[in-house]
Amino acid sequence: MRKICVVVGSRANYSSIKSAMYAIDEHPNLELQVVAVASALLDRYGSVETQMKQDGFDLRSRVFMLIEGETPATMAKSTGIGLIELPTVFEQIEPDIVLTVGDRFETMATTLSAVYMNIALAHTMGGEVSGTVDESIRHAITKFAHIHFPACSDARDRIIRLGEPDESVHLVGCPRIDLVAEILADDAGDDALSEMFEHGVGGVFDIKQPFVILSQHPVTTEYGEGEKQITTSLQAIQKLGLPAIVLWPNPDAGSEDVARGMRKFREHNDDSNFHFFKSIPIKQYVHLMSRTACIIGNSSSAIREGAYIGTPAVNIGSRQNSRQRGSNVIDVDHIEIEIASAMKAQLNHGRYEGEPIYGDGRAGRRIADVLAGAQWNIQKTITY
Amino acid sequence: MRKICVVVGSRANYSSIKSAMYAIDEHPNLELQVVAVASALLDRYGSVETQMKQDGFDLRSRVFMLIEGETPATMAKSTGIGLIELPTVFEQIEPDIVLTVGDRFETMATTLSAVYMNIALAHTMGGEVSGTVDESIRHAITKFAHIHFPACSDARDRIIRLGEPDESVHLVGCPRIDLVAEILADDAGDDALSEMFEHGVGGVFDIKQPFVILSQHPVTTEYGEGEKQITTSLQAIQKLGLPAIVLWPNPDAGSEDVARGMRKFREHNDDSNFHFFKSIPIKQYVHLMSRTACIIGNSSSAIREGAYIGTPAVNIGSRQNSRQRGSNVIDVDHIEIEIASAMKAQLNHGRYEGEPIYGDGRAGRRIADVLAGAQWNIQKTITY
Amino acid sequence: MRKICVVVGSRANYSSIKSAMYAIDEHPNLELQVVAVASALLDRYGSVETQMKQDGFDLRSRVFMLIEGETPATMAKSTGIGLIELPTVFEQIEPDIVLTVGDRFETMATTLSAVYMNIALAHTMGGEVSGTVDESIRHAITKFAHIHFPACSDARDRIIRLGEPDESVHLVGCPRIDLVAEILADDAGDDALSEMFEHGVGGVFDIKQPFVILSQHPVTTEYGEGEKQITTSLQAIQKLGLPAIVLWPNPDAGSEDVARGMRKFREHNDDSNFHFFKSIPIKQYVHLMSRTACIIGNSSSAIREGAYIGTPAVNIGSRQNSRQRGSNVIDVDHIEIEIASAMKAQLNHGRYEGEPIYGDGRAGRRIADVLAGAQWNIQKTITY
Amino acid sequence: MRKICVVVGSRANYSSIKSAMYAIDEHPNLELQVVAVASALLDRYGSVETQMKQDGFDLRSRVFMLIEGETPATMAKSTGIGLIELPTVFEQIEPDIVLTVGDRFETMATTLSAVYMNIALAHTMGGEVSGTVDESIRHAITKFAHIHFPACSDARDRIIRLGEPDESVHLVGCPRIDLVAEILADDAGDDALSEMFEHGVGGVFDIKQPFVILSQHPVTTEYGEGEKQITTSLQAIQKLGLPAIVLWPNPDAGSEDVARGMRKFREHNDDSNFHFFKSIPIKQYVHLMSRTACIIGNSSSAIREGAYIGTPAVNIGSRQNSRQRGSNVIDVDHIEIEIASAMKAQLNHGRYEGEPIYGDGRAGRRIADVLAGAQWNIQKTITY
Repeated sequence: MRKICVVVGSRANYSSIKSAMYAIDEHPNLELQVVAVASALLDRYGSVETQMKQDGFDLRSRVFMLIEGETPATMAKSTGIGLIELPTVFEQIEPDIVLTVGDRFETMATTLSAVYMNIALAHTMGGEVSGTVDESIRHAITKFAHIHFPACSDARDRIIRLGEPDESVHLVGCPRIDLVAEILADDAGDDALSEMFEHGVGGVFDIKQPFVILSQHPVTTEYGEGEKQITTSLQAIQKLGLPAIVLWPNPDAGSEDVARGMRKFREHNDDSNFHFFKSIPIKQYVHLMSRTACIIGNSSSAIREGAYIGTPAVNIGSRQNSRQRGSNVIDVDHIEIEIASAMKAQLNHGRYEGEPIYGDGRAGRRIADVLAGAQWNIQKTITY
Repeated sequence: MRKICVVVGSRANYSSIKSAMYAIDEHPNLELQVVAVASALLDRYGSVETQMKQDGFDLRSRVFMLIEGETPATMAKSTGIGLIELPTVFEQIEPDIVLTVGDRFETMATTLSAVYMNIALAHTMGGEVSGTVDESIRHAITKFAHIHFPACSDARDRIIRLGEPDESVHLVGCPRIDLVAEILADDAGDDALSEMFEHGVGGVFDIKQPFVILSQHPVTTEYGEGEKQITTSLQAIQKLGLPAIVLWPNPDAGSEDVARGMRKFREHNDDSNFHFFKSIPIKQYVHLMSRTACIIGNSSSAIREGAYIGTPAVNIGSRQNSRQRGSNVIDVDHIEIEIASAMKAQLNHGRYEGEPIYGDGRAGRRIADVLAGAQWNIQKTITY
Repeated sequence: MRKICVVVGSRANYSSIKSAMYAIDEHPNLELQVVAVASALLDRYGSVETQMKQDGFDLRSRVFMLIEGETPATMAKSTGIGLIELPTVFEQIEPDIVLTVGDRFETMATTLSAVYMNIALAHTMGGEVSGTVDESIRHAITKFAHIHFPACSDARDRIIRLGEPDESVHLVGCPRIDLVAEILADDAGDDALSEMFEHGVGGVFDIKQPFVILSQHPVTTEYGEGEKQITTSLQAIQKLGLPAIVLWPNPDAGSEDVARGMRKFREHNDDSNFHFFKSIPIKQYVHLMSRTACIIGNSSSAIREGAYIGTPAVNIGSRQNSRQRGSNVIDVDHIEIEIASAMKAQLNHGRYEGEPIYGDGRAGRRIADVLAGAQWNIQKTITY
Repeated sequence: MRKICVVVGSRANYSSIKSAMYAIDEHPNLELQVVAVASALLDRYGSVETQMKQDGFDLRSRVFMLIEGETPATMAKSTGIGLIELPTVFEQIEPDIVLTVGDRFETMATTLSAVYMNIALAHTMGGEVSGTVDESIRHAITKFAHIHFPACSDARDRIIRLGEPDESVHLVGCPRIDLVAEILADDAGDDALSEMFEHGVGGVFDIKQPFVILSQHPVTTEYGEGEKQITTSLQAIQKLGLPAIVLWPNPDAGSEDVARGMRKFREHNDDSNFHFFKSIPIKQYVHLMSRTACIIGNSSSAIREGAYIGTPAVNIGSRQNSRQRGSNVIDVDHIEIEIASAMKAQLNHGRYEGEPIYGDGRAGRRIADVLAGAQWNIQKTITY
């Protein structure tokens, strides 16, 4: 039995790897080891830990590692805490492969801990281009990983150009799309959405009528701009007059700025047309994506899940620069009038045809199969 | 005045950056900030801190960060300590550019701290291929760095293939060669070497007669093999019958293994033909390199400085795999008879012509000039 | 010039030491070094850092050390971060004496860092008995401190019984009372309070009419009870019908529980009679204390400042058990009817005569004078 | 089954708790959880981990926590690493009681981790007076502990005067004496000692002839004096002319100084009469204590085990100041002539009668019995 350790560090992380976790857990030759770290343990980002337990996963260890402050310095320091503790955890549970997700700072801690300890590293969502410090982290992790699971063909090609051997790169699609496919196949979402306004705070409205979604995160290289950026977006939505579902930002350098902007907006404006959520369960979120008149902000979900679902999207600013995107996305700057005008265009257009750029719904099973059979040389060498 | 922070983490680090530190310190538009960390602060690895002060450098901060154990886990944990403390240091001294050296774990801590804090990162000795986990670290740092100072042309080409913009890559040579050139130009070394046996322990011999140098470090991906590997090399030298200067290993996962092998050899053999040093001052080392009949082991100095000086070298095992090398190197496995036979061939050949593959002695000044004029975009993007 | 380092870790800390900081700063033979750590740096607890700068203090260093989670484990871990970083800070600024305040976990980190580094430790507010883990921390710090500044006579006696030499124990009063005295002497508070409702969230009411204050924190040894406890208090107040000023809890194990209770109360009740503050500037707080019909909860301020001011107080539960108190306090359990009945009794009684149990308003100057002249033996020995 | 976690941090720690570990392991109502930390994991201090496994104990976790440097700052920082990691360990293994030993820095980390997490703390060897920062640590731990196991009657009385309830203080003797009693009862030691010179380095001599033992550690409050102090002792012994068994110092602030003194002495003197050990197995050590003409230095074993065995002892300097001692000890300063003269007096006197001041050989079983039946209130309060 190969032991596969998945380190889950946030709500986004979990959605991005859950279908692979199920597939690993069910695979006859694999044993799943789940470790929850960072914001996955915290109430104020929606407790992912609780959700994982409800989904039937046992936790092998929990590592609180986020240092409060959400400044650039605390991101580095939080990575440091992870690097102090994860080796102790890995020594106890002795995984054969550590599977890590994406490009956040807890991912860097997972990566370095595994690599220094001569444990094989598998990586999902490598090779993508996106802007922010996440891009450098993602490519650096590619240089450490022994097994690559890119989500799209562009990403696969880029990993190979980075000097990784062809046979270590497996185009599997994004496991997050697996969840989307399953949810959309399941039902129309009426039940899932019926009691959604019992959570969060703010106004209540009829989601059978047109509404928008706003999901906007700080850009680490634009530290200090977050408050102004979110305010611009909120004002554009308010002028449009449609009700909005608004998500609090991920914990990252600058998220406190964004949150402050949201709190001030709430205090100084009539917010009866806005409802604010710390997090939305993935099931509700997918159904909202399939119904919304338009998703606004700089979340990758607008581009990735949006492509599969066909959700009209207005992508603001630099955070998603260069991410491969479908025809559902209109890109704009942090300028109120641009945002407003793009929203109007999307309202007129309505839902798009789905494009499976980021997967066809079977990524998780492919990942488990590769992990069960993979060979690797712990000593990596660049191909050129 | 641009503030350039150099984080020095070991004796090898210091030799590899010292000429650039002088050049930065003397440059009219640059201010040098020196931070000493990790083994640079420790007596038992030869106190680099003391040497830096003697060389006229002021320290802005000191960070003790090595966790004892020298296992794979403690390397990761030591990186973690660095990541907790260096952001606090950077916040205090506010460098414009952090200049980091090579590929060791403290380098990774320096790199991540700078990058998360949106400070430009310059990197020397990137792009090389070498074996061990250091190779992955080195390429990962390339993916984080904004300014690259490769030491040789192969390395420059590789950095560009890794997706870094041409204009950010500056072929300057290795600053360590600057020191070598200066030392060799200075005098014949008789004074420098006259009292060398007052340090270290073991036998004393005449270094005007043929002698060899052994410098062998643990290979992190071959953890647990170090004791056997060093014993093989010591036995090969003993059979050859030439006196030997032996260096203790760098602090790394597995160095305790190598040290144990050396201690056991000393206890169970006549060691009157061997003299053991914790470290050798660079000046003595260069003169020894220019006189030795042969340098043995897996130190990069045999290949880099060896090329410039023309030192006959026997390189053992995988640690230097694929490092660009001159005609002075014979490669062998950890097999006693192979090592012995290669040593004999080198004794017969004698000193080689120098080849300036890793620089011509002016790297430090080039680095300072580039740092003074460089432009960068803190938001990196891959070129493809 | 003796260098006196004050490590400020929270808003409560700052109020408890500010008058001593001014007195040290102005003393001809002392140099003040301020280090801000933990929640003193965080926006969401009211930025103490900003306030210290406005008050004219320069910061020598900032240490982010709070690990998110607010569980018992994260308190220990946060102390650990402090212990990793503060020695580096102390090495840089080389204080002669470190002055630490009270009994929180950052205080423990400050204490151990100073003591291990052979720096003399001075401690305010030692010797008091209070319940919670803070009591053990406080007495442990007494066993490390070289100079003691108890706030009341009971505390002085207790420190001496703990085996500390008489001559090291200086009864000075509490520096927080210095601020209270100064504020009350200054003006009637009308200006200070005129715009207070522009901050915080919730209902607005006339503070010339009777109102109450609720300040209730988690009890670390009753972890998990916080939500129920705060709900009971809020309901008791609601039934009473008087408007209330409510403070969010300090960051401690369990504060998330208390905060959740407050959020739920706001969501499920008419909260127009309640106004919620993350923090209240000390000036406003003192004037509110001198006007309120009754202060409710388990804050030490009800007992300490309350005694000096004569504020009617209802102290709930075990958190302040055994703290020396004046006639202004009625003690009750976490039972709605008890709380309500005690509040009514206090409303009938009205304001009390002030009792200077915790000082007469000149503690800060006494502390500075003692620090300027103190002798100590870095090697402590118990007196029996 | 009550779960009792013992955190072992050094070779001295292990000897001081081993008999209690056996008794806990064998007790029908107790489950033993062993965690190895700090120097217990390190080869260069004699691997305690290996020895524990040979003795039949399973490790539940290992925490590398020593930061290299052995300066005052690194002791604090090492405590910090322990505080970051031990809470994660305790969360996983959920002990009912944590049993901690003595007064070293890893003990402080264990203590704070347990206390913050509301786990009951039991403490051996509290209440003693000894000099060095260890004394403050020991008394501070007493203020955190719920169950006390003093080794001698003076210590018990002192714990009670420190405000601990009588019923929480159990005079059990020192578990280390249990081992001594067992070893001395077992055999005459000829086998145990026959091959001892195969370990360590230096001269070989006949231990049936008179010899001395030197065991001298740095004094943390006399940082920087260690090299001179050890040199004085070594010279005094050399002049006496008897062969000597010499122990390397414990890892503590300043141990590098002492070690340097020892290395220099070896390099510059005829050391054929000296044999140096990193550590000596307890069995050999006890037999050596029962045979030696005199034990010299500042080790507590000369006083504690020495009293039970009747070993002639010369105690140098301040490290053991005020430790309760028997008639076997002569106290002197770090002055060569004083040391020499006291050694001569002890040689003339010969072995003393044993005095069971620190226990009668049954401490371990008493500790296990108390732990099985103990009641405690997690919320401590001082008794006065």
